[in-house]
Amino acid sequence: MKEVYLDNLSNTRIDPRVLEEMLPYLGENYGNAQSMHTLGSRSREALDQARERAAGLIGAGAEEIYFTSCGSEANNLAVKGTAEAYRQKGKHIVVSGIEHFSVLYSARRLAQAGFEVTHLPVDGSGLISPEEVKKSVRDDTVLVSIQQANPEIGTIQPIEEFARIARAKGALFHTDAVCTAGLLPVEVGALGVDLLTFSGTPIYGPPGAAALYLKKGVRVIPQIDGGIQENGRRAGTENLPGIVGFGKACEIAKSEREDNYRKLSGLSRRLIAELPAKIEYVYLNGHPTRRLPSNVNFSVEFIEGEAMLLFLDQKGISISSGSACASKALKMSQVLTAIQVDPAVGQGSILFALSRNNTDADIDYILSEFPPIVKKLREMSPLYAYFLKTGERKPAGPGTDYEHEHEHDDQ
Amino acid sequence: MKEVYLDNLSNTRIDPRVLEEMLPYLGENYGNAQSMHTLGSRSREALDQARERAAGLIGAGAEEIYFTSCGSEANNLAVKGTAEAYRQKGKHIVVSGIEHFSVLYSARRLAQAGFEVTHLPVDGSGLISPEEVKKSVRDDTVLVSIQQANPEIGTIQPIEEFARIARAKGALFHTDAVCTAGLLPVEVGALGVDLLTFSGTPIYGPPGAAALYLKKGVRVIPQIDGGIQENGRRAGTENLPGIVGFGKACEIAKSEREDNYRKLSGLSRRLIAELPAKIEYVYLNGHPTRRLPSNVNFSVEFIEGEAMLLFLDQKGISISSGSACASKALKMSQVLTAIQVDPAVGQGSILFALSRNNTDADIDYILSEFPPIVKKLREMSPLYAYFLKTGERKPAGPGTDYEHEHEHDDQ
Repeated sequence: MKEVYLDNLSNTRIDPRVLEEMLPYLGENYGNAQSMHTLGSRSREALDQARERAAGLIGAGAEEIYFTSCGSEANNLAVKGTAEAYRQKGKHIVVSGIEHFSVLYSARRLAQAGFEVTHLPVDGSGLISPEEVKKSVRDDTVLVSIQQANPEIGTIQPIEEFARIARAKGALFHTDAVCTAGLLPVEVGALGVDLLTFSGTPIYGPPGAAALYLKKGVRVIPQIDGGIQENGRRAGTENLPGIVGFGKACEIAKSEREDNYRKLSGLSRRLIAELPAKIEYVYLNGHPTRRLPSNVNFSVEFIEGEAMLLFLDQKGISISSGSACASKALKMSQVLTAIQVDPAVGQGSILFALSRNNTDADIDYILSEFPPIVKKLREMSPLYAYFLKTGERKPAGPGTDYEHEHEHDDQ
Repeated sequence: MKEVYLDNLSNTRIDPRVLEEMLPYLGENYGNAQSMHTLGSRSREALDQARERAAGLIGAGAEEIYFTSCGSEANNLAVKGTAEAYRQKGKHIVVSGIEHFSVLYSARRLAQAGFEVTHLPVDGSGLISPEEVKKSVRDDTVLVSIQQANPEIGTIQPIEEFARIARAKGALFHTDAVCTAGLLPVEVGALGVDLLTFSGTPIYGPPGAAALYLKKGVRVIPQIDGGIQENGRRAGTENLPGIVGFGKACEIAKSEREDNYRKLSGLSRRLIAELPAKIEYVYLNGHPTRRLPSNVNFSVEFIEGEAMLLFLDQKGISISSGSACASKALKMSQVLTAIQVDPAVGQGSILFALSRNNTDADIDYILSEFPPIVKKLREMSPLYAYFLKTGERKPAGPGTDYEHEHEHDDQ
């Protein structure tokens, strides 16, 4: 059976060139980068090189790059770290309603500690309006954090404009660029951001390494206290193999970005154009044009996301239903709720998260396998039967489908 | 030239069996463990197996293991996480004065947030007295955190006794077992601890993976907010290759623990017995018998640690001067200060951190190469000249040698 992997949101297959670069640091080069001896120096040089490469991807200085263990950790450091560092300035932060959970839950943690959090609304395509950003920033606003693109619906925000507004009013601006850095031309100077999160996992790097760009002079309170590593901003012995791999992934992403972009755009354009031609009552989520080339999110009416995933898996097609962190919950996500997808439609949402490893043959395979699955599921669907009989849509019961989109055992 | 690596405190060479287990997860098994498809299930199974293996090393239940990116992160989660979760009970915590910086600085962070922190003193051998523990615990004490053994001087604490005292008075007990788990027989039930930190790096596992044992029912506030991973207590896509490697390292450590212990004890006993026979004015730091088999820390009078490291490095001997996190600072550490080593002596301290990869030939090499280095350095030492001339020791200048033992750019 053909295998098609379309769950590249949070994990991509590690590039063999990345692994090759990592292997010495999983073998003979195991010296502590903080130690003075020769083996330590070798590790320190590798760490420095990785920092240069990571900085190079986003046009930053190497000294502005702080390695973390994942994008979530970097987002926590950005949001909680600045809020705590600048609390004398004020206790107000602004985030969009469709941020990654690591931003949203960091903001919630701050709210518990007495901060005020403004959640920016989005329109039906997932866009945030500059007017809303302007309205939200106050004299006591410490930070505005808006994702460059949403991984679930792919909508790309005009970050330059938001950053200009925030900074003109004296607030710091952070963007979570986990799903854009290495894919779009992301350059911190042009964006005008103070902090930026990026990660190795979406760009064929290993899990366990990501980074926060911290513009020179911007302060954060460490969230992992203790060591001298990362210039005192992140304690813990460095995950050197992971960081080396991340650096290499950044280097490759930079040099091959345009080719990858072109390829991914071609593949996603096909899905967007051809799938609705084969399946009725299917709707693209997110913005029609301002969108990631790697992301296609459809709502398929009258059926449930979970059933589609299971049937597709039986055909060798690996897919996630939405946000990587919440994909097990399989209910309509808060992102789809925020862009006001009808719950009756949104519960049948499916996310094709492409990587450069996908091919036109993969798209052909989906176009041939997916429509019969939808047909079969609709034949079993009471909602579809009702629609066929009455020509009308049954409204979704209140609160049944999307209340637990992110079950969080939080004390 | 012979190469002898004796800086195994925070980094050890990854076991080839560990790397072999990791490789599939750096290659074809890249599925997100949170996804429902087949590749995701495979990752989930690997995650579950690693959790079982990690739990097995310390006699815990798999559901009591929470993976983190490093020991420092686990210590932060233990200290700040419990303090925040139980703040209604009280705002007092107890740590020893010779904890790892990730515990000490977490405690300091809590102090900034209004907690009261008691630092337990240690005696000249690095031992904490049960009486002091008893005296320190109050009705409003949330947590007592004491390292099972100090990595720098090797002294092993009677954790069972401390845990009994703390828990009898209603406080939680955490131990940082990073340098004991896998080396000593560490069993959470017998120790009677509520939380325990352990890591893969000292047991021939990869960097980037460690764990916090959290006894069933004990609550922590996550320090990395956001995802459903690790049962909501630690967000972020899992570093699956790292975690798989950590699990394998735990499994091997358990089955080979006694052999390793015997081997390491033999090697360190030789250094402890034979080096002072070849070098005058050299003093073992830490407890003479209650000590890690992997650790030999000497103060060598009349010379400086840094100079010894550099000369040893020229002979292919890699060594750190003390605490892994502070080794660049190269001043007398706060651990040596706490056990009241004379600063004039303590600045010449040197730590031999052994691993199972060391051999008797390594010890022979040190015993033959190190004494001439000491001799040469002493010939250049004005302190030694003064001593030879007067028969008296020159006192160390006030605050010159040990004030910056942990330079921390903390805002």
